[in-house]
Amino acid sequence: MPSYKAPVRDTRFVLEEVLDIGQYAALPGFGELTPELMNSILEEGARFTEEVLQPLNQTGDRSGCTRDANHAVTTPPGFKRAYHQFIEAGWGGLSGDPAYGGQGLPHVISTAFEEYLISANMAFSMYPGLTLGAIAAITAVGSDEQKALYLPPMVAGRWTGTMNLTEAHCGTDLGLLRTRAEPAPDGSYRLTGTKIFISAGEHDLSENIIHLVLARIPGSPESVKGISLFIVPKFLVNPDGSLGPRNAVTCGALEEKMGIHGNATCVMNYEGATGFLVGERDKGLRAMFIMMNAARLGVGLQGLAISEVATQNAANYARDRLQGRALGGVKNLQGPADPIIVHPDVRRMLMTARAFNEGARALALWGALQVDLAHLAPAPEARQDAEDLIGLLTPVIKAYFTDQGYFNATNAQQCFGGHGYVRDWGMEQFVRDARIAMVYEGTNGVQALDLVGRKLAAHGGRALRLFLREVTTAVENARKTPATAEAAETLGCALADLQGATGWLMRSALTRPEQAGAASTPYLYLLALVALGHVWLRMLVVAERKLAEGGESAFHANKRITAHYFFRHALPETAVHRARVEVGADPVMALAAEDF
Amino acid sequence: MPSYKAPVRDTRFVLEEVLDIGQYAALPGFGELTPELMNSILEEGARFTEEVLQPLNQTGDRSGCTRDANHAVTTPPGFKRAYHQFIEAGWGGLSGDPAYGGQGLPHVISTAFEEYLISANMAFSMYPGLTLGAIAAITAVGSDEQKALYLPPMVAGRWTGTMNLTEAHCGTDLGLLRTRAEPAPDGSYRLTGTKIFISAGEHDLSENIIHLVLARIPGSPESVKGISLFIVPKFLVNPDGSLGPRNAVTCGALEEKMGIHGNATCVMNYEGATGFLVGERDKGLRAMFIMMNAARLGVGLQGLAISEVATQNAANYARDRLQGRALGGVKNLQGPADPIIVHPDVRRMLMTARAFNEGARALALWGALQVDLAHLAPAPEARQDAEDLIGLLTPVIKAYFTDQGYFNATNAQQCFGGHGYVRDWGMEQFVRDARIAMVYEGTNGVQALDLVGRKLAAHGGRALRLFLREVTTAVENARKTPATAEAAETLGCALADLQGATGWLMRSALTRPEQAGAASTPYLYLLALVALGHVWLRMLVVAERKLAEGGESAFHANKRITAHYFFRHALPETAVHRARVEVGADPVMALAAEDF
Repeated sequence: MPSYKAPVRDTRFVLEEVLDIGQYAALPGFGELTPELMNSILEEGARFTEEVLQPLNQTGDRSGCTRDANHAVTTPPGFKRAYHQFIEAGWGGLSGDPAYGGQGLPHVISTAFEEYLISANMAFSMYPGLTLGAIAAITAVGSDEQKALYLPPMVAGRWTGTMNLTEAHCGTDLGLLRTRAEPAPDGSYRLTGTKIFISAGEHDLSENIIHLVLARIPGSPESVKGISLFIVPKFLVNPDGSLGPRNAVTCGALEEKMGIHGNATCVMNYEGATGFLVGERDKGLRAMFIMMNAARLGVGLQGLAISEVATQNAANYARDRLQGRALGGVKNLQGPADPIIVHPDVRRMLMTARAFNEGARALALWGALQVDLAHLAPAPEARQDAEDLIGLLTPVIKAYFTDQGYFNATNAQQCFGGHGYVRDWGMEQFVRDARIAMVYEGTNGVQALDLVGRKLAAHGGRALRLFLREVTTAVENARKTPATAEAAETLGCALADLQGATGWLMRSALTRPEQAGAASTPYLYLLALVALGHVWLRMLVVAERKLAEGGESAFHANKRITAHYFFRHALPETAVHRARVEVGADPVMALAAEDF
Repeated sequence: MPSYKAPVRDTRFVLEEVLDIGQYAALPGFGELTPELMNSILEEGARFTEEVLQPLNQTGDRSGCTRDANHAVTTPPGFKRAYHQFIEAGWGGLSGDPAYGGQGLPHVISTAFEEYLISANMAFSMYPGLTLGAIAAITAVGSDEQKALYLPPMVAGRWTGTMNLTEAHCGTDLGLLRTRAEPAPDGSYRLTGTKIFISAGEHDLSENIIHLVLARIPGSPESVKGISLFIVPKFLVNPDGSLGPRNAVTCGALEEKMGIHGNATCVMNYEGATGFLVGERDKGLRAMFIMMNAARLGVGLQGLAISEVATQNAANYARDRLQGRALGGVKNLQGPADPIIVHPDVRRMLMTARAFNEGARALALWGALQVDLAHLAPAPEARQDAEDLIGLLTPVIKAYFTDQGYFNATNAQQCFGGHGYVRDWGMEQFVRDARIAMVYEGTNGVQALDLVGRKLAAHGGRALRLFLREVTTAVENARKTPATAEAAETLGCALADLQGATGWLMRSALTRPEQAGAASTPYLYLLALVALGHVWLRMLVVAERKLAEGGESAFHANKRITAHYFFRHALPETAVHRARVEVGADPVMALAAEDF
């Protein structure tokens, strides 16, 4: 059975030593987050996820969710009890708005906890995760009455939330959606239609479920410009907040999926269900994108979290499993064979994952800090910079982290040989669970298009210029110190690849948009590697300083080792991504569609 | 539900136009393989696999195999009937020895058929596939009596075969195995032990199952030098070939696996089972490797075959699924949206897979031809060259094809968005099925070690020198023609990367074996890309010649398009693999085992 140990020391390294979040103590929420509180959140979060949620992960996969004749959905054994413990301990409201009962702590600390939550039990984590997205949308565009009515029980976790976008014939292209919302005399709407792939759409964990649903009001344009967002509660809510009658929304079926069996993925039937417009008519997509952007960072975190837990288990197995002898001479004289961790190719897989995990953790927490700063930084320029940077890197984190999460989970499974392919060891579940993250909240290809089509171009390329400036400065500074000069040199080369590819893209895509489409995924990979190189350089600088000061030597010395692995093994890949950008769209587009 | 169309035209292109197998008509078996017979085998094979086997693939995954209280195993609905059709049509004996009832056709044609078989139903294909491995071992090291007794019903498919190597505590490192074989007074042995992960270990398809089992005879060395190979029939066989009593070998359990549910993966309990030594005592591993090498090429073919069928389905879906509009302007004016095949990033995934599939098909069939020539070529030097080349490329084909098969199946699933993650569409099954091929018959890491540790070094590097010579000649020739000069130039760069990495390896690994281990997988990828580049250059040369001659223009023009995609997108990756070889073992080995 797999195990999990939350990487608290590494989280603290990023928060305290790299991001130095103490410097933001003057900002709301950050002041409350004393080092003591932060440590107790991380330690308690570790204990809760390791002891309560992780033991339910494999059984959740086996049991899955079930739906009865009355369309009621039951989550796997233990989930309901664990969810009650989760909300009682207040885990869902860490960064919730205090006005609605939240603890008002920075996003950066709840993100740290979310990584643990997902590693321990990804299917479980999606129930509160989707609630956070729904809270974000209502917070952003809901009326004061809606906020007052819905947010307190959602922040408390007594009610959960969902996102209802997809229909059978439309996912990415929401302009095609058919769900209708007919105005009723009382100002509410009657929603009719079928939504699919609705995560946490129906279940037994919470007293109520607040569905956020995209639908078209008759007379609105038949395009993305005619879509509105509605609140459709499972149980209608009385003005005093108590539950009213059951609404006409039911779970029509549970999807049979490759993984995340512990999460109920529902076909949702709206049959004249009562809904309430949130935000402006026909502006629903914009509101949904508020949810979506937060959700995309959360999905990126899933890539990291599964990679982390899978790697931990592979490393444990590689230390235990005796098979063959080390190439450089016997290592385990007393035993019948050496542990397979002596084999360089096993280490190559583990080090590749480790270099990703630690870099991705730093980048994810840095990203979460930008989300905080975009709201809280005192200077408007600082807020804008933070918003630009996180906007630019959201599709990168979503797509690259989830591709790598799947890749590393696959490699972790590989370390188990045949044992990785059978269910008992739990490794194949990590792969199956990780797979969905490349798809939902916009496929990774859609992320790449968002990057090259929107994020790069926005405000005349302001966000990328800022990013390039920051990396350039970091490279120039690190070049001056012998201990970081080699890494800075490598990052400088990667940066040059990124600048070259960007220049090519700017020149080429203007005249032919297909150039941007063909370049999108290699370009995203290139930018992801530079962004990871940037955080790795920051981490190396810190580690070298601590080592020079004679600090906690083992931890920082290992950080240096992993940094060098990243710079020598992973980062040189930028050259091939640049080449794939600059080769242009012709090779990709030449074949006639009917000849595929 | 997924579909499958055997790529007969492409197989014929490789066999007739690229490999020109007509030139070998003087060799045994090749003479019988007239163009008419070849076409009828391919067309009939296509029909049989498309119409009989493919419809059982998804249901086989759903139903899986079941084991009853008497340890009897039932295959999924339809498998038994289909297997009988399979053997009645003689598909199992295509390249079987005519002395034992086989059709004596070249390996190259049965390999072409096997690709279709696996694409249509990988789990099914393993039952006859393992039989071929067992036949190969008995043919190579069995006594005349053993051959006469066991081979005819196995070649006919009435009996199937298995390979029994793995035990719970040992897979790669067979020296650790514990299964014992006690000599009995009648010259037979009594085998006692438990084997795991035994594909097709017990089932209802055949009258008898011939297990080939590795075990240790008391007094033999406690290492790989003390392992012998035994025939252990499920039903003992009377001297006249009729079935005798049930042997003491039973299926103790079916493994619950990630995929290939239609194949019975068994725990096999040997409880004093009667076995017969095959080949020499203590030389069992050598005999098993005869099986294994053939099996590794077969597993490589699984990578190609799943990639092919998954890509076909993705391309079909991408042509049908309407979602979004083309970047370069609306393509489907009448429809509500354009088919997603207009999107360059979707094409990128499809073209990457296509370039692999067509290249891998050519390389697999070229490899199968080398297997034939290693036995049949009149000149001893030609036999040796063929054996050297296929020995060198066996681990490359096994590991690279299966890694890419999984990668392409994952990308094909990605083209379906969320629909790829649910079971109905069948795409996630391709991913789960493809996953095992990276593991069994030696993990891909073990293949890489076999390449750098054994195959490169054998006979002073003779095989690689021959390979490099052949590629060099091809590059030099193709450089002279404008239509192939660009591709030749790119292959020349890749070849230089391979030569550089090889030189580094030769110099470095002698003094420190870990250098070879750390370099093994990147080196294997590098060699694989050059080998694919080599066959792609041959195909491009043929296509250009045919186009110049005004032949079948659409097919050959598309071949040119795909060739250029391969040379521009896939091949430049060699540089990063070379860099990863030459960075050496230090970054991989630096972290202490306990710090992972």
